[in-house]
Amino acid sequence: MRGTQESPENAILLTATQVAEMIGGRVEGNPDVLVGGIAPLSQAQGEELGFLAQRRYLRDLGHTEAEALLVGEELAEAADGHPCRIVVKDAHGALPKLLSHFYPSPPHEPGIHPTAVLGKGVDLGKGVSIGPYAVLEGGVILGDRARVGSHAVLGAGSRVGEDSVIHPHVVLYPGTKLGARVILHAGARVGADGFGYVPDGEGVAKVPQVGGCVLEDDVEVGANTCIDRGSIGQTTVGRYSKLDNLVQIAHNVQVGRGVLMAAFTGVSGSTEIGNGVMTGGQAGFTGHLQIGDGVRVAAKSAVLRDVPSGMTVSGSPAREHRETLRAQGLMFKLPETAQKIRELEKRLAALEGSGEG
Amino acid sequence: MRGTQESPENAILLTATQVAEMIGGRVEGNPDVLVGGIAPLSQAQGEELGFLAQRRYLRDLGHTEAEALLVGEELAEAADGHPCRIVVKDAHGALPKLLSHFYPSPPHEPGIHPTAVLGKGVDLGKGVSIGPYAVLEGGVILGDRARVGSHAVLGAGSRVGEDSVIHPHVVLYPGTKLGARVILHAGARVGADGFGYVPDGEGVAKVPQVGGCVLEDDVEVGANTCIDRGSIGQTTVGRYSKLDNLVQIAHNVQVGRGVLMAAFTGVSGSTEIGNGVMTGGQAGFTGHLQIGDGVRVAAKSAVLRDVPSGMTVSGSPAREHRETLRAQGLMFKLPETAQKIRELEKRLAALEGSGEG
Amino acid sequence: MRGTQESPENAILLTATQVAEMIGGRVEGNPDVLVGGIAPLSQAQGEELGFLAQRRYLRDLGHTEAEALLVGEELAEAADGHPCRIVVKDAHGALPKLLSHFYPSPPHEPGIHPTAVLGKGVDLGKGVSIGPYAVLEGGVILGDRARVGSHAVLGAGSRVGEDSVIHPHVVLYPGTKLGARVILHAGARVGADGFGYVPDGEGVAKVPQVGGCVLEDDVEVGANTCIDRGSIGQTTVGRYSKLDNLVQIAHNVQVGRGVLMAAFTGVSGSTEIGNGVMTGGQAGFTGHLQIGDGVRVAAKSAVLRDVPSGMTVSGSPAREHRETLRAQGLMFKLPETAQKIRELEKRLAALEGSGEG
Repeated sequence: MRGTQESPENAILLTATQVAEMIGGRVEGNPDVLVGGIAPLSQAQGEELGFLAQRRYLRDLGHTEAEALLVGEELAEAADGHPCRIVVKDAHGALPKLLSHFYPSPPHEPGIHPTAVLGKGVDLGKGVSIGPYAVLEGGVILGDRARVGSHAVLGAGSRVGEDSVIHPHVVLYPGTKLGARVILHAGARVGADGFGYVPDGEGVAKVPQVGGCVLEDDVEVGANTCIDRGSIGQTTVGRYSKLDNLVQIAHNVQVGRGVLMAAFTGVSGSTEIGNGVMTGGQAGFTGHLQIGDGVRVAAKSAVLRDVPSGMTVSGSPAREHRETLRAQGLMFKLPETAQKIRELEKRLAALEGSGEG
Repeated sequence: MRGTQESPENAILLTATQVAEMIGGRVEGNPDVLVGGIAPLSQAQGEELGFLAQRRYLRDLGHTEAEALLVGEELAEAADGHPCRIVVKDAHGALPKLLSHFYPSPPHEPGIHPTAVLGKGVDLGKGVSIGPYAVLEGGVILGDRARVGSHAVLGAGSRVGEDSVIHPHVVLYPGTKLGARVILHAGARVGADGFGYVPDGEGVAKVPQVGGCVLEDDVEVGANTCIDRGSIGQTTVGRYSKLDNLVQIAHNVQVGRGVLMAAFTGVSGSTEIGNGVMTGGQAGFTGHLQIGDGVRVAAKSAVLRDVPSGMTVSGSPAREHRETLRAQGLMFKLPETAQKIRELEKRLAALEGSGEG
Repeated sequence: MRGTQESPENAILLTATQVAEMIGGRVEGNPDVLVGGIAPLSQAQGEELGFLAQRRYLRDLGHTEAEALLVGEELAEAADGHPCRIVVKDAHGALPKLLSHFYPSPPHEPGIHPTAVLGKGVDLGKGVSIGPYAVLEGGVILGDRARVGSHAVLGAGSRVGEDSVIHPHVVLYPGTKLGARVILHAGARVGADGFGYVPDGEGVAKVPQVGGCVLEDDVEVGANTCIDRGSIGQTTVGRYSKLDNLVQIAHNVQVGRGVLMAAFTGVSGSTEIGNGVMTGGQAGFTGHLQIGDGVRVAAKSAVLRDVPSGMTVSGSPAREHRETLRAQGLMFKLPETAQKIRELEKRLAALEGSGEG
């Protein structure tokens, strides 16, 4: 809900020196260049600072239009041909402060759009905002300063903590509970029925999904991501965890604290994901697993077994990362291996022949 | 659309004996413990029955707060230290009956919200309910007791069978046809254009997608799942089939009866999926395949060829499951294989040397 | 937004000869058969032309009810038992013209539904249509004849080019820019925050996502697909590119012109996809890659490195397609390879024994 890069209307120009002070860096070259925004080297124009944090983007250095650069320490020397570099230890780490300055969020405007539908017993905190056509069913509780976007549907009895932001078109099924400062992007579905059936005659019978769904403080959920309620018991996403777009969390999954999951990650029912786990895109977990703290799962891995804390896994089926790399490397050498075996066979046959002869 | 586990307001407490009678089980231990709900062993509190159906959850038996257990027959002995066990042959199978008792759905309240938009010629059955801001375009037909959630959009001429439940934010494209007792979860998109283009000058030309989309009786579709209409002809999902969240069914796909597809399963255009097929998460099918009845497809499989009835396949590309397991197992033994070949070469060279000497 | 196959109310019947003239084909057999639609061989009824473009569907030839066939040149001989064939060089290529005739789109009806919410400074072109409950926030610009479906939310300052079609339930985040003739299907989310965090104390800090998101002319985006805005700088999808349902494009990705991406394709941050690239379903790209023009990526590939122009890749990790095929083929021969090695060992031991003896 902030403006786009093209309209940093409230931006205040800073000198390179002022920028360096703000982020604990130093200026190399001209300290007086004016800065009013930030962009990749290849796109920076006008007063936008050129952002250089990875070696591969040195390729853009020769033709950037940026008059000043933000450069990570390890690339300072490689960039020293540019007339103004602001050098900082961690260029990515400097972004939140810089961007909040140059691209301030539009001020929060409390208020309830007249088209919003509020059910019986809805309880609204101070300074909330509710967009056009939002539907808050009976008994919904909104914390102070919570924001509900257009068309969002908050099911009966759901709760939203203070300072949370519900983007347009989010659906919370009845009884869902969100902590404080939770962000849900457009189309997130939280608390839907899990995928639970039992055999029944010629078809299957639906197992009623009666559990709860809890997202703790500071959780962020990407667009069109789905988190099912518990079948019995509850599904939980722990504090500080961030889910990308199009992630699937099945019923009764327990996601720990500070977990990061990239797009298309799928977690099957009842699996427990430890604190600080990170998953690459399109990673998958079967059900009822225990994944330890700090585990890293490479993109596209298929995790079929428990993983102990601290391990990095990859592959399908997933194994310890180095083991997978070694096996994959040898797999692509199989044509050579086959050739070696043919040669051994020939040499052996020759020897056998000579022995017989 | 049922309440959460925390508020089974209409629940009626039962004794362990009464529960056992309801589900055809027996009580071992104290028959008089009162039961008012059900939860996993690790979460059960108060009068909640602890649910124990898998061996791995015996780990929670020592510290559960549940005063009574629901136990599958095969775990009865392992659980016999607990003062009250309700033992039943199939613990999962007992859930639908138990949960319907302890967590009854809120009564269906027919009625049409005044903000709903009804087009020309809309035909509503008896006892239907239509939520706030739902849009029923011209010619929509709703069967008796069908429920349409907030913000759902039912395209022109679409039909919804009796007792079907359309959750909030569902979109039916024009002409989509749903049978009876169909359940569509939030954000499901049914009948959208398939992905069809032909080369045309510097770009591609869109092939108009003019076919239909039919979901037969008792189909359930998860949140944010997409089912495209036919390009020509129609896309069909057969009776009793259940699709998880975030599934993709392309144009002209024929899904048989009683099929279960886990999240992120993708089926490409015109593929035919037989009756009773089951797919794990992130499984994929290329187009124009014929997949026989009862086929099982492991999670993350890439099915590139027809599969005969009854076969279980896995891997990428998918092959018969045991064949894949054997190949994968040997792949992880490639380092040993390479070592063996090096040793053979040494021994052979030694022999060759001795022969020459 | 066209009708379904069952109700081609405006269709005009043509003779086989007239159809052949329209698409530059020839009639073999009876030239006077009347045609009023088109369907797969197995589904065609009444006056529907049976569509036969792939050898595998010859299986349906014996029992089709179609009275006339549309046949690709290469199958003309195989189909010559049918009394009326319209033979054309490229049967798929003939579809756009035929379908536009038999299934004309309903006429575009300009108008603004009274329930639409228009913010300050909204600028509407001529002949636009805006559906029920659509929300156009402040400063939105709609080109001539643009269509906005029910419930769509167009964030502040977003722009939609002429003749674009926004289906129901689309969300454009603030500042998103769409070219002309863009089509967005239901539930597409364009311009949402990318997945960007930096370590911060016990959790992570969100990096404000302040960049833009641009879809050029003639782009089509499938249902529930997500395209994130730039973190800094912008995300771009080039002219003529088509994304299937449930695709994920991360922040700062640059998609070239004429790109086709099948469902569940995921592209990680800042990766550049060349012109004319095609990806199969469930393909994935890690971040910061450069993928050349004309690259083809097989379904389920995991692209972890740059790919030069014109290459076809497959596998996980992705390699040149033939290399992957060879390695996969040999992987499934590993049981035989292991057997060969065991035999070599035996024979060698025998030789060694005889040498010693």
